[in-house]
Amino acid sequence: MTLVNSNYLKLPGSYLFSEIARRVAAFSAENPDAQIIRMGIGDVTRPLPQAVINAMCEAAREQGAPEGFKGYGPDHGYMFLRELIAEHDFAARGVKVDPDEIFISDGAKCDVGNFQEIFAQDNTIAITDPVYPVYVDSNVMAGRGGELQPNGEWSNFIYLPCTAENNFEPALPQRRPDLIYLCYPNNPTGTTLTRDQLARWVEYARENKSVILFDAAYEVFISEPDVPHSIYEIPGADEVAVEFRSFSKTAGFTGLRCAYTVVPHKLTAKSPNGEDTPLNPLWARRMSTKYNGCPYVVQKAAAAIYSPEGRKQVLENVAYYMNNAKIIRDALKNAGHTLFGGVNAPYVWLKTPDNMLSWDFFDLMLNKYNIVGTPGAGFGPSGEGYFRLTAFGSMENTKAAMQRLLK
Amino acid sequence: MTLVNSNYLKLPGSYLFSEIARRVAAFSAENPDAQIIRMGIGDVTRPLPQAVINAMCEAAREQGAPEGFKGYGPDHGYMFLRELIAEHDFAARGVKVDPDEIFISDGAKCDVGNFQEIFAQDNTIAITDPVYPVYVDSNVMAGRGGELQPNGEWSNFIYLPCTAENNFEPALPQRRPDLIYLCYPNNPTGTTLTRDQLARWVEYARENKSVILFDAAYEVFISEPDVPHSIYEIPGADEVAVEFRSFSKTAGFTGLRCAYTVVPHKLTAKSPNGEDTPLNPLWARRMSTKYNGCPYVVQKAAAAIYSPEGRKQVLENVAYYMNNAKIIRDALKNAGHTLFGGVNAPYVWLKTPDNMLSWDFFDLMLNKYNIVGTPGAGFGPSGEGYFRLTAFGSMENTKAAMQRLLK
Repeated sequence: MTLVNSNYLKLPGSYLFSEIARRVAAFSAENPDAQIIRMGIGDVTRPLPQAVINAMCEAAREQGAPEGFKGYGPDHGYMFLRELIAEHDFAARGVKVDPDEIFISDGAKCDVGNFQEIFAQDNTIAITDPVYPVYVDSNVMAGRGGELQPNGEWSNFIYLPCTAENNFEPALPQRRPDLIYLCYPNNPTGTTLTRDQLARWVEYARENKSVILFDAAYEVFISEPDVPHSIYEIPGADEVAVEFRSFSKTAGFTGLRCAYTVVPHKLTAKSPNGEDTPLNPLWARRMSTKYNGCPYVVQKAAAAIYSPEGRKQVLENVAYYMNNAKIIRDALKNAGHTLFGGVNAPYVWLKTPDNMLSWDFFDLMLNKYNIVGTPGAGFGPSGEGYFRLTAFGSMENTKAAMQRLLK
Repeated sequence: MTLVNSNYLKLPGSYLFSEIARRVAAFSAENPDAQIIRMGIGDVTRPLPQAVINAMCEAAREQGAPEGFKGYGPDHGYMFLRELIAEHDFAARGVKVDPDEIFISDGAKCDVGNFQEIFAQDNTIAITDPVYPVYVDSNVMAGRGGELQPNGEWSNFIYLPCTAENNFEPALPQRRPDLIYLCYPNNPTGTTLTRDQLARWVEYARENKSVILFDAAYEVFISEPDVPHSIYEIPGADEVAVEFRSFSKTAGFTGLRCAYTVVPHKLTAKSPNGEDTPLNPLWARRMSTKYNGCPYVVQKAAAAIYSPEGRKQVLENVAYYMNNAKIIRDALKNAGHTLFGGVNAPYVWLKTPDNMLSWDFFDLMLNKYNIVGTPGAGFGPSGEGYFRLTAFGSMENTKAAMQRLLK
């Protein structure tokens, strides 16, 4: 018998955002006149920076002549982009990352979803809770989840709750994980770790020979000085951590698709006979075998955000979104809500009033205010009783939504 | 201990094209004046069709205004492209494929590399030999290879030799495989199966409940009437086959990255308790979880090749490459070589003279004629004694290379 991967069959019905889309579509069908404001999915709305568009068109036109045509690119990305990244995203912050440690891809979702492939199937996974669902689902698909329990936890995962009670700082795990997923600034809570707090995790990983998979997709939104932009700002992190970065939220690339992953040369895990095995060549092999590079036009577009003009336009968009975050924060506070995030991240994490279940609060917000947010429970058991609002809408819609809530 | 995926460690040193690149670089370093002509890797060289470039620039410019901005696209591709594909690539040939059965991606390499994920780890794989290395390596990485044996075969795979002796028609397997990889027009041999020959495989899969993974990346090069363009031209194939298509070779998209996979609604495999489980939702789940869509600008570019103007420009490029193939075929025949392919595919499969080993012939071609081809042994044990030349170069270079050989 040709058998399907039975781990897939363990996954509950539908992906979070599909379920949201389903409920919104049903509501819209019944209420065709409702002016729904979407503050749910973390998708940007500002137009692409003009520098990006110009670079992309120029790259497209280059390819209309034999001498400008670009076929398969270098497996792991064009060096012009990897060098810009090494310089601007790392060296400029005093962090040394070699261009050979940088792998260009078409999305951080792909990278964080696929990276687990280079580890053994029986590795133990730790995740903060609530969490970006891709870390969970990709490991369940690979057979690392065990069984889904009635409390919403997978039996083989180590959950690190992050709630108001611990001020959203996960406690170090009680049993040792092989792989630790950390995302800071955090999706969905919008909270961060300070340099000292993150250093504690690096130290833990070094002592326990764990590997940290650090998702820094929201780095550009950091506004406070004590929040690290890269895990490699912590000494010794290059021996224990992979870092995922994305142009999606940074520069409006959600529909353009470009990201990168840093796999330091010093980072190793063990082979079955106990030898230290560098992860960089394993990821290189994975990417060479099952991936064929990010489009040249998109890599040129990404390079443009490192130009002075591009950088300025990117930061204008970031400021626009963070102004929305402030509007949301101020309004919700005025309305007497308890909330977190929204200072170093485009996400505001709202405590539901009266301990309302988060899907109930979702339905209330949709039905009463015609506002779509994301129920915290969709991000894991510890997200229950919370609700995520994003600052990625237009300022007009953000203000309109908040006025509806304050009425 | 954090353990690496030990299956990766079983893979031999380096990917075929990396090894070729290494040898060519070494030769170039020693012979800086040599005019090397590259007929090795299957990368196109013609500029992108103007219709494609125009569509891409227009799509890029759309995104400079809030009302034209496109963020995350639909998970499985924009409907405008899926409908064009269903109409032009299938309905026009009398084949019914539903747009919901089409998944847009950034490359057939990614799709054929990743598709195995939705099957159980202990499924048995059959591959034709020689074969595109991605089928082999992706399954080895997933733990389906067993051990690499001295003869170059993986212990758990079923090999289906395709050589001059059987006129490159693989015999039906002696033991039943769960998954059968077929690629027609074939990479690397350039040979094809007729409709009747392919029907035999569909019948075998139906009788044995095997799933065929049909790679039709070279479909556009088919020139003979009895060669099927899609496996779905064979009645009943939609119950047993997935089909992979690519815009890379079709329209010069190797650096732009767009492809698609057809997973028919009727296609199933078994769950552990023996239930028929449709593969379409499993692949949808895989793509929703670990992929975030092909760039909007690239999907618009792909849509442009279905316009009358785009189609015309694509076919001009195809004719250009197939003229190269004819130049290669004619020259090699004149020189007394035995060769195959090059009629329905851009690859010519040359029997090495005097049973020379294919890497030795590679070195001879490089050192004596400064021509880079691909040694057949790089595609599997049955590729030994053969050599692949591609028709993807410029006409000038193709002619120059053949003149060197004829001298």
